[in-house]
Amino acid sequence: MKFEVYFSPSEVDELSMRGRNVVIIDVLRATTTICTALRNGAREIIPTPDVVNATKISSNLSSDARLLGGERQGKKIDGFDLGNSPAEYTPEKVTGKSIIFSTTNGAGAIYKCRYASTAFVAGFVNVSAIVQAVAEIGGTWTILCSGRQGAFSVEDAACAGMIISQVEALTDVDIEDAGLTAVILYKNFKKSILGMLKKSMHGKYLISIGFENDLALCAKVDSVPVVPVASGQSVKLRYSVPEAAPKTDQTTQV
Amino acid sequence: MKFEVYFSPSEVDELSMRGRNVVIIDVLRATTTICTALRNGAREIIPTPDVVNATKISSNLSSDARLLGGERQGKKIDGFDLGNSPAEYTPEKVTGKSIIFSTTNGAGAIYKCRYASTAFVAGFVNVSAIVQAVAEIGGTWTILCSGRQGAFSVEDAACAGMIISQVEALTDVDIEDAGLTAVILYKNFKKSILGMLKKSMHGKYLISIGFENDLALCAKVDSVPVVPVASGQSVKLRYSVPEAAPKTDQTTQV
Repeated sequence: MKFEVYFSPSEVDELSMRGRNVVIIDVLRATTTICTALRNGAREIIPTPDVVNATKISSNLSSDARLLGGERQGKKIDGFDLGNSPAEYTPEKVTGKSIIFSTTNGAGAIYKCRYASTAFVAGFVNVSAIVQAVAEIGGTWTILCSGRQGAFSVEDAACAGMIISQVEALTDVDIEDAGLTAVILYKNFKKSILGMLKKSMHGKYLISIGFENDLALCAKVDSVPVVPVASGQSVKLRYSVPEAAPKTDQTTQV
Repeated sequence: MKFEVYFSPSEVDELSMRGRNVVIIDVLRATTTICTALRNGAREIIPTPDVVNATKISSNLSSDARLLGGERQGKKIDGFDLGNSPAEYTPEKVTGKSIIFSTTNGAGAIYKCRYASTAFVAGFVNVSAIVQAVAEIGGTWTILCSGRQGAFSVEDAACAGMIISQVEALTDVDIEDAGLTAVILYKNFKKSILGMLKKSMHGKYLISIGFENDLALCAKVDSVPVVPVASGQSVKLRYSVPEAAPKTDQTTQV
């Protein structure tokens, strides 16, 4: 198998992602939150980079069927129902709902992959489930790190490295410079993913605005073992997408 | 001191580099070649990302005072005097010449820094000389890796990590995620810089087109201990720029 890693969505555009198999990562916190919301019963996540667009989409859905979620500068957007903490997306709040979701980095990265052939959403919380799904499909994969406002973020790169390392344990893997770097980073930090998050720029920022507890949730490897798939406008659990469902491994889903 | 590292020039633009102190790196091979040419007596290097522009600049200079150098796909440009191998830039060829220099990654990165406050040109061949110059000036520095066609390259990132590691041995250093990653990469590869170059995507490509010997030249730490400074249109040795010359350390120049 082959992996191409991009450390920031600024390196790619919608058309270059067309037809690819992609894994999108935003450990702190968008992809962790998406996994949590879907595991807890949300019907779908509708990512959009744009707050005005989020409000527009929301107005087209019945008010008891949707929630507005997301952040700017890490904080809940004014008038939105939920912020970007995985802990907010409880079964009580999200079951059956469509969640229109606008965040600074992750939502935009997912949106850029709307013409991809397959687009999985990953964090440390679902890494093994993603590895299993990716290895089943095989071939060439792009890993798109959401980064931080167009620049590099260490936690997304290390998560990419963990995915590649786990696939490498199953089969031969061909990687380029960025993939090699991601693997080296993961090996450097694997003894303490939480320690790395606390050291990261965005982790430090989240601690400074009162979200330290989120770091522990985002660091819990395989705690939310789902496979979210972005397809068209929304992200759903892989088994809500019948044509993509394998027959044998339903135990990996919660 | 503080370091901000960018892994690719696509993350920055001319205006964002304005007024900054910058170190530009393109280990394979532009910055290594610039160091070699200046050490061997070239009057100046005039970098330009554009071949047509290179020819135009050249036509404005007397033919016995200038050379055209550079590459596309690693190979010498048709009609140019020299390619991008450091070994070509011998004293016999370059002494006293202005070299108009167009390469795929490094020349463009230097050109992007034309409004910087200070812009040094670095590779493994002059890393300690650069560290000394940077530490003398102090403050905040941007390290701009030239990368490979807008994407990440491991050798430039590791060289950035070596610079930061050496400064860290002299004084406290503040780094962000990319700088942290650069240092981890350097520590991972420091036992064999040449081994890393051979493993890198661009190193493999250069070997495939017959430039394996260049890798050994580019890997030789401190073999060309000069400090090239990009200022205005051209790159010259630091001691050709009187206002930037310190009084005490002329021994670091060859």
